[in-house]
Amino acid sequence: MPVFLDTTSPEFEAAFQTLLSAKREDSPDVDAIVAQIIDDVRVRGDEAVIELTAKFDRLELTPDTLAFSAEEIDAAIAQVSDADRQALELAAERIRAYHEKQMPADHQWTDEAGATLGWRWSAVSAAGLYVPGGLASYPSSVLMNAIPANVAGVERLAIAVPTPDGQANPLVLLAARLSGVTTVYRIGGAQAIAALAYGTDTIAAVDKITGPGNAFVAAAKRRVFGKVGIDMIAGPSEILVIADKDNDPDWIALDLLSQAEHDESAQSILITDSAEFGRAVAQAVDKRLETLQRRAIAGASWRDFGAVITVGSLDEAASLSNRIAPEHLELCVADPVALSEKTIHAGAIFLGQYTPEAIGDYVGGPNHVLPTARSARFSSGLSVMDFLKRTTLSQMTPEALRAIGPAAEQLAQSESLEAHGLSVTARLKRLNG
Amino acid sequence: MPVFLDTTSPEFEAAFQTLLSAKREDSPDVDAIVAQIIDDVRVRGDEAVIELTAKFDRLELTPDTLAFSAEEIDAAIAQVSDADRQALELAAERIRAYHEKQMPADHQWTDEAGATLGWRWSAVSAAGLYVPGGLASYPSSVLMNAIPANVAGVERLAIAVPTPDGQANPLVLLAARLSGVTTVYRIGGAQAIAALAYGTDTIAAVDKITGPGNAFVAAAKRRVFGKVGIDMIAGPSEILVIADKDNDPDWIALDLLSQAEHDESAQSILITDSAEFGRAVAQAVDKRLETLQRRAIAGASWRDFGAVITVGSLDEAASLSNRIAPEHLELCVADPVALSEKTIHAGAIFLGQYTPEAIGDYVGGPNHVLPTARSARFSSGLSVMDFLKRTTLSQMTPEALRAIGPAAEQLAQSESLEAHGLSVTARLKRLNG
Repeated sequence: MPVFLDTTSPEFEAAFQTLLSAKREDSPDVDAIVAQIIDDVRVRGDEAVIELTAKFDRLELTPDTLAFSAEEIDAAIAQVSDADRQALELAAERIRAYHEKQMPADHQWTDEAGATLGWRWSAVSAAGLYVPGGLASYPSSVLMNAIPANVAGVERLAIAVPTPDGQANPLVLLAARLSGVTTVYRIGGAQAIAALAYGTDTIAAVDKITGPGNAFVAAAKRRVFGKVGIDMIAGPSEILVIADKDNDPDWIALDLLSQAEHDESAQSILITDSAEFGRAVAQAVDKRLETLQRRAIAGASWRDFGAVITVGSLDEAASLSNRIAPEHLELCVADPVALSEKTIHAGAIFLGQYTPEAIGDYVGGPNHVLPTARSARFSSGLSVMDFLKRTTLSQMTPEALRAIGPAAEQLAQSESLEAHGLSVTARLKRLNG
Repeated sequence: MPVFLDTTSPEFEAAFQTLLSAKREDSPDVDAIVAQIIDDVRVRGDEAVIELTAKFDRLELTPDTLAFSAEEIDAAIAQVSDADRQALELAAERIRAYHEKQMPADHQWTDEAGATLGWRWSAVSAAGLYVPGGLASYPSSVLMNAIPANVAGVERLAIAVPTPDGQANPLVLLAARLSGVTTVYRIGGAQAIAALAYGTDTIAAVDKITGPGNAFVAAAKRRVFGKVGIDMIAGPSEILVIADKDNDPDWIALDLLSQAEHDESAQSILITDSAEFGRAVAQAVDKRLETLQRRAIAGASWRDFGAVITVGSLDEAASLSNRIAPEHLELCVADPVALSEKTIHAGAIFLGQYTPEAIGDYVGGPNHVLPTARSARFSSGLSVMDFLKRTTLSQMTPEALRAIGPAAEQLAQSESLEAHGLSVTARLKRLNG
């Protein structure tokens, strides 16, 4: 049974706090093992990567077969059904169109002092994308990670995807090709992250690593952060649906379940201004759980972390939503635009009853890599910005230096940084002398 | 003696590699102590913060005196000289003007499928800025951290600055006021980071923490990352100057020294196409080191990490610069704009001989918090973006769902996520039925 809360209850605040602080992530401490694997790859390079792949993925590789050949990729892609191919192509096209609009502009201007100032964006030279193997090997994640990098202009774009027992997912390889990926390595785990961060004889080091992974991958990303850039460390997924009574309970139930089926640690919350509608949705969830393929996972998530909250008004719903800061927020209400203006902290908002969150997972266009665990309070989903960096530009004329240089001299003196001041003084002396 | 390299030498590549990989940071392992301090503050709150401040800063506080009162700030600011005040005001004004131009725009559009897509930027609700105490308590750093937050629209902006033995820097307090800071706490170290991240009875928790600090502060920021957002973990500062022979060697020497005087671990590198000019600069450095106030620090940095590299052409200089990916890059050449188009990886570029890097530290306008240790390959300096997050927006009409929904169903099926598919199917059934 999920938890049922009502804001009019005197126990509400305590129960809501408990819900907010529930520890959903079960992260085993693998840091020591990961540190060892990274050191091993740094020292022995390809040899270590090949040994670890034989051990963990039961796959014998050589430096020549670490990456898929173009022919292997062609052969795998040839197996993809037309229906899958067309769906993936539509998704890729829509994701690309959305992310192309994100490209930020360079900017430069000259101010009254005569200083020319501005900034310039440029892409990281090389990025590595981690794609989990096995069950969670999602082609949609390849599109969501690789297309923003490709749109940003990243020249070299490598994927690492483990292929346990040699089993590769043809759709992952097709997604890689549709996204402009240059190389696909059949390696995984901490050894793949280490190889991408530090490079080996065969695997060139990259500047940025993104993509989801298990506890080993997450720990490895944390460890190589600084040497390379990383994206967020994603926690279990979550959805908050705010729905009034004028919705089909079954639709909302399916939206809650589409989050719950990801992971036993996923969290689905419904906020509604109708207690009766809340009960109807909970019944619809139970009904769907009778037959759902992933009912074991979805059922556990709903039982342990699900919640139905009844509020007195949609304003109250918005205020609770801002405290939850959900990864995904669905607004199934009469005026979703008005409500969205009050729900400030959220990774992605889906407006209206015809926008189930699953659309955003695949073909909407916006990215599905989003901030979890309340981090939407301070961070954003993946975007082209994650593969760009900004260089600031300044150019002084002699006049500009005369105008603002004395203030720099003064502040350098107050901070006791003499050479800072002298570097301005020496120039002003010549200009004024 | 700094190292002298010449790209025509057969030993160049090895020596340059050594220069690139020199470990300059001396980071003591304080992680266990920091973990203990954070736990203590989480459990005992104000009491722990007050005890630790008494211990480390020799300052007895109560919950009522954890923050400076408005009167205390007024009294401190009244001591600031007119010259200092005017310089700080000019700096604040110029930094604000630059960062206001960084504010990104919201964007929304409807595509051919009938889907309305877009994104919206919003500020984090509360930010905490760490300001070191003692020698490195720089008012300019307050401006550079707080003004972007204020421009972004952060509502609650707190500063933590330790005041050992009760000594506060009036210029830091003036900088805080000029930047729109709401509260200044006289606390420091890991206990200040813990209090800002988790909150105490007196100190409200924030969503994002930025600002430089010692090894304890850096380790604490790493530990609270996830609970709150943090900026980069800054390493020792560095400058690369690319200069041709038509420069005054003394000006360039002072620019190199203004980096070296920060820290014994700072690094100053000159790349020039004239070996003779390189020698002249090295001589000018030595001459200035005879009298410089901070000659002990600057001399050690120049001796241990300084370098003069002679190249055959400015193209070669650009290519080496991209491998170094410097925090600060000065282009003192005849056509700095042309050269800047080839120097892709750099935190900040200063163009022409009238733009010493010190201008950028104080009054140029761009931020002086910049990526160190080659991280300009994948990251950017501090900006208003660090205090904003992006929420993506999607709204489907029935027509849009009909157009793209089937592709989502297909992909959900290929990823074995049945509820994802059903959430679309249930809606399409009604729409098509």
